[in-house]
Amino acid sequence: MKPEKSPNSGVLLTLPVWLEKQLDAESPVFPDPEARMRWVIGLSLHNVEFRSGGPFAAAVFERETGRLLGAGVNRVEPLNCSPAHAEIMAIARAQKQDGHWDLGHDAARPTELVASAQPCLMCLGAVLWSGVTRLVYGASAADVTSILGFDEGPLPDAWRQELQKRGITVEGERLRGEAVAVLDLYKRKSGTVYNSRKGF
Amino acid sequence: MKPEKSPNSGVLLTLPVWLEKQLDAESPVFPDPEARMRWVIGLSLHNVEFRSGGPFAAAVFERETGRLLGAGVNRVEPLNCSPAHAEIMAIARAQKQDGHWDLGHDAARPTELVASAQPCLMCLGAVLWSGVTRLVYGASAADVTSILGFDEGPLPDAWRQELQKRGITVEGERLRGEAVAVLDLYKRKSGTVYNSRKGF
Repeated sequence: MKPEKSPNSGVLLTLPVWLEKQLDAESPVFPDPEARMRWVIGLSLHNVEFRSGGPFAAAVFERETGRLLGAGVNRVEPLNCSPAHAEIMAIARAQKQDGHWDLGHDAARPTELVASAQPCLMCLGAVLWSGVTRLVYGASAADVTSILGFDEGPLPDAWRQELQKRGITVEGERLRGEAVAVLDLYKRKSGTVYNSRKGF
Repeated sequence: MKPEKSPNSGVLLTLPVWLEKQLDAESPVFPDPEARMRWVIGLSLHNVEFRSGGPFAAAVFERETGRLLGAGVNRVEPLNCSPAHAEIMAIARAQKQDGHWDLGHDAARPTELVASAQPCLMCLGAVLWSGVTRLVYGASAADVTSILGFDEGPLPDAWRQELQKRGITVEGERLRGEAVAVLDLYKRKSGTVYNSRKGF
């Protein structure tokens, strides 16, 4: 008799099928930094339209060439996994692709994280340990909080300086209006805003 | 001809084989809160001894019964995944086991995260969104920084109050000496301290 499969088989962080198919079909390279953000905001829009997670997307690119190393969208609800924010998904995917836990391991090939919205406290930490040397974001934390009521956590007032002290430059808000439009759409569709405890 | 497997098949967050075997063999229940921490510190020690990741462990328990919902150890290096800290692994595992992204979804069954060391900035955020209502930790952030040279990130001065505002009580340092001994052992073995950028 074959033993039953162990229930302890790890946690699989998957992207939506529509995004897997898109990544199989194309090998995105965006020399223009604005085009990178527009592509990422497009992923956040698709994630809302296909109801495959929250209204957030992120991607890791080679800074110089604009070659995609890894993409992610928010997957908290479909995966039953509160850490599955877009930034965590993109960083994990890029590091898998790269075969390294440090996206800065090759100093001749600096990398950046492009996120459709300013990272929450968890993802700010994830950016710090990822090895990227630039963070680019669209909507601000204030946009996310005011539109969705999402708590971004106790972000340090000097969060940009905290990144810069650790060798990570910050650019944003880039294409903020387009990024905010996706948050507005999600709100109109009454998507889940998951924040766990609401008592703050 | 069968198509080749897509390279885009998700990121699998696995625990070490020794821990999977242990979890298959036992169903830990620790009515005594101190026994929960001692078990978690034991996992951090095994993770160092078996060289299966950094010197950190964490687990989610039912607060009242002490029944284990999910365990994790640091897996950054073996999985090439900088977000794979022990707390993230334990939260993701517990949520998978629970079939819910909110470990507080059942108000009659509150849950807690027990971590061998005070969470870094990323994991502090992960705790906030996890749904646990108590955080218990062993070694302090100052211990982690002074022994290993690991940057915990720009933790808010009032981090305990920030958790408490969101309905999460904090207890620590519990069994600090035992937790610190594992950090010391890791240092003596010259394990990797991964912090990405060192220029802060």
